[in-house]
Amino acid sequence: MPAALRRRAGRPSEGVLTRELILVTALKVLNRLGPDKFTLAALADELGVKTPALYHHVGGKSDILAGMREYVTQGIDTSAFGVLPWPEAVMSWARSYRSAFAAHPYAIALLATLPVTGAEQTLQMYERTARGFRGAGWPEEDVVNTIVALENFILGSALDAVAPEDMFDTGGFADQVPVFDAAVRVRHSAAGTAGSAAEQAFELGLAAMVEGLEARRKALAAGE
Amino acid sequence: MPAALRRRAGRPSEGVLTRELILVTALKVLNRLGPDKFTLAALADELGVKTPALYHHVGGKSDILAGMREYVTQGIDTSAFGVLPWPEAVMSWARSYRSAFAAHPYAIALLATLPVTGAEQTLQMYERTARGFRGAGWPEEDVVNTIVALENFILGSALDAVAPEDMFDTGGFADQVPVFDAAVRVRHSAAGTAGSAAEQAFELGLAAMVEGLEARRKALAAGE
Repeated sequence: MPAALRRRAGRPSEGVLTRELILVTALKVLNRLGPDKFTLAALADELGVKTPALYHHVGGKSDILAGMREYVTQGIDTSAFGVLPWPEAVMSWARSYRSAFAAHPYAIALLATLPVTGAEQTLQMYERTARGFRGAGWPEEDVVNTIVALENFILGSALDAVAPEDMFDTGGFADQVPVFDAAVRVRHSAAGTAGSAAEQAFELGLAAMVEGLEARRKALAAGE
Repeated sequence: MPAALRRRAGRPSEGVLTRELILVTALKVLNRLGPDKFTLAALADELGVKTPALYHHVGGKSDILAGMREYVTQGIDTSAFGVLPWPEAVMSWARSYRSAFAAHPYAIALLATLPVTGAEQTLQMYERTARGFRGAGWPEEDVVNTIVALENFILGSALDAVAPEDMFDTGGFADQVPVFDAAVRVRHSAAGTAGSAAEQAFELGLAAMVEGLEARRKALAAGE
């Protein structure tokens, strides 16, 4: 069988092409090829169709990016708001938010700066989160800035989750950066006992940030 | 004059090509074209040379990326460590770190996961930062995780600094997400009085994170 035919065997034909299948496949292709090689042609090839066939279901690359964020956002769990105290609820939300994006690292930078206008799933996630904040006593003018500050930390942490293990290997410069090199070695030997190094940094930062935010929440609620 | 000649007028010829000129130009080209269109061919075209000429000065795309980080890292100011108390020193470092990367938004995701091995400028920045932390009483085993946690927040904030102003415009969905929509409107009307909305979110998050970290630093220094 010619390679071209073998490659298409078992792939969906244009007849079963759906918007959801395109978006799920787009995330797979983006994860595999990275943002510099993610094109509509590569996506169509993965789906075993010609590029123009995609336009029956999606409105082009920007629509696909918007749809991918809707899909990733569905993995963010807001159910702890209103059930657990605010610090625990926001940490639960933050952990599921990081996990959802760490599964799609190349999507982070592409989606972090894409307006949410018209993105219903994403807007509903923000609505449930904003309600959780307001219900815990956060003043209206602090809600979005506080969510954005947490998102900045979460998305940076999702990027770090896919950094290589030897990210901080000082190599031939160990003698010139002895204090940093020693700290890197201690970190490396501690990692694994309580999750990956990236997880430990995330949990340390999350605990610190939420502690600082909780102090602010209490002070604002007390009318200081 | 033909367009091809006009385009090359005033551009450096291969004779004055240097590693530094290639790296500075690479940052410009990356900022203008984005990661998906940033290629060695586009870089060579901007410099007015043929692609192979680049290889006399740099070792290919990964060497250029490493060199770009070295260049961006030089903008990070570590001079407050050992001079100001740790909370003020780390906030000063964090602000200059965010500014350095916010000037090159497309570099963030590309460089955040690139090993620092052999990157002398970057390693020296980490050495000065680690010395600042150790001098303020941070235990060796917390130094790298704390730096990484702060970097996650800083790089996420640098991405947010280039998000469009209308990022959270709820558009036609305002009625379905009333709590979030009201919070977005309040934020929008408050922005501008004390810097951009992105700056306000960064300062709010930085203050909270450093407050939480300072509590941890004090507790650890007291041997708790």
